[in-house]
Amino acid sequence: MPGNEQNLRGLDAAQVEALSNSHFPQIHVGGRAMQVEEAGARYACVRLRKQERHLRPGGTVSGPTMFTLADFSVYVAIIATLGEAGIAAVTTNLNINFLAKPEPRDLIARVRLLRLGRRLAVGEAQLFSDGAADLVAHAIATYALPGPPRAS
Amino acid sequence: MPGNEQNLRGLDAAQVEALSNSHFPQIHVGGRAMQVEEAGARYACVRLRKQERHLRPGGTVSGPTMFTLADFSVYVAIIATLGEAGIAAVTTNLNINFLAKPEPRDLIARVRLLRLGRRLAVGEAQLFSDGAADLVAHAIATYALPGPPRAS
Amino acid sequence: MPGNEQNLRGLDAAQVEALSNSHFPQIHVGGRAMQVEEAGARYACVRLRKQERHLRPGGTVSGPTMFTLADFSVYVAIIATLGEAGIAAVTTNLNINFLAKPEPRDLIARVRLLRLGRRLAVGEAQLFSDGAADLVAHAIATYALPGPPRAS
Amino acid sequence: MPGNEQNLRGLDAAQVEALSNSHFPQIHVGGRAMQVEEAGARYACVRLRKQERHLRPGGTVSGPTMFTLADFSVYVAIIATLGEAGIAAVTTNLNINFLAKPEPRDLIARVRLLRLGRRLAVGEAQLFSDGAADLVAHAIATYALPGPPRAS
Repeated sequence: MPGNEQNLRGLDAAQVEALSNSHFPQIHVGGRAMQVEEAGARYACVRLRKQERHLRPGGTVSGPTMFTLADFSVYVAIIATLGEAGIAAVTTNLNINFLAKPEPRDLIARVRLLRLGRRLAVGEAQLFSDGAADLVAHAIATYALPGPPRAS
Repeated sequence: MPGNEQNLRGLDAAQVEALSNSHFPQIHVGGRAMQVEEAGARYACVRLRKQERHLRPGGTVSGPTMFTLADFSVYVAIIATLGEAGIAAVTTNLNINFLAKPEPRDLIARVRLLRLGRRLAVGEAQLFSDGAADLVAHAIATYALPGPPRAS
Repeated sequence: MPGNEQNLRGLDAAQVEALSNSHFPQIHVGGRAMQVEEAGARYACVRLRKQERHLRPGGTVSGPTMFTLADFSVYVAIIATLGEAGIAAVTTNLNINFLAKPEPRDLIARVRLLRLGRRLAVGEAQLFSDGAADLVAHAIATYALPGPPRAS
Repeated sequence: MPGNEQNLRGLDAAQVEALSNSHFPQIHVGGRAMQVEEAGARYACVRLRKQERHLRPGGTVSGPTMFTLADFSVYVAIIATLGEAGIAAVTTNLNINFLAKPEPRDLIARVRLLRLGRRLAVGEAQLFSDGAADLVAHAIATYALPGPPRAS
């Protein structure tokens, strides 16, 4: 686990991938699609590698695929910030707006944490088609953070 | 297409399945999981048959699986109400609250449309573990409805 | 404070009004508009008495007025369920859909709690124009509940 | 009304205030609190001047006040972008996260439009206590835009 100094700048992409692969391997069921590109204290950038199963007729990426990417990329930002203590975080709410039809290309999610409290973290995910400037979707996700040990 | 009388009570489950299978077969990629159990004007009930790929360690159903079920079951209620005219509806917003850890069983979504306007439909989806009374998730989805032909 | 038996059925409307008036009098600034009509474990019904300041040209009730009613009525259901322990609850998220233009009449909010956990409560508020059957707005609110004393 | 050139950069703060005052004076009932500080194509910055009625015990700004500011400031960005054509826009959905207790000072809302379609506009509002860097609330609002004249 990182020491205090590292905590301030968070885990990097390789450290987060190592943690999430060991605790959360099922994200890769069906083919390794999610790739952490950048991570640090309170932010993350995650690429979804386009696969046949993510596409819809008319050449676009499906809504559930965008949801999955938004949800996972906020989780990555939490782990990058909290380290192993973030692994047990669970989504309690996710609000997603679909803004434009994505191209049938990779999707990029850029996340920043808007709040990191003792019990809740709130993250914003902006989703883009790879190489394009306009948002295709915008999501706000709330995660419940694992509590400290309770008084007995 | 249904006549006026049928429009009032909507399409039934078999009619909706036939329509959605012909226009939206990719919902079944990876294995036929969604089954329309009931449908009618402004409501639907959809079962998600539990499959290995939907589960998470600890024996629960994944968040993206619940999102997919909520989103699809509101779409079913729109098609049941509007018939073929609903096929082109697209999700613009979905807000989901995860309320309790689902059992590793089938999930049931019960949907009613809260609003069916000329341009927007808003549906509420309540998700349950099969055979259980408590909600595991609650979602509100907004769909944009295909417009009438524009004046030229 | 209520004993165990009362906790099961919750506080009634008069008990909730007494508690909320003593702790939260500012809800009545500008004129006593909110009236708790029914309350009990996990539910509440609150009336907003129409006043000039709530109206909009064209004869409708303003969006902020509907937000205020939805937010307050979920709070009422929490207090009805938890008693004085619910007073310190604070809204963390509120998602509201405006479904139809309300009549320039009283508004009625019907609330049920979808979840009451150790740290979060989630309530659904359905808003109607007094005497009408169709929803004018629908809201889901999440409240953070005051934690138990922390271990020292 | 602005010509084409002006449409590209939008209306400025004074132009928006003039339009909204003439069409929407009720926003100032109870005292002139909202002040448009900046506006232009797809963005706005609005100040809420703190008044007694906006405060809560413990020295903070109420949730309904933050909702009102978020909702109004997205409306301002729509008018700044569309001019008089935006006046008839109505909120269909607003999702707000309360992130931190605001100081008992003016609030500042910074808005950008994430999407401006033919029928829907989606705006993001970030709320700050005046002079502070951390978000106190974050909202996403969807407005339905008045349609073009229908074919007859």
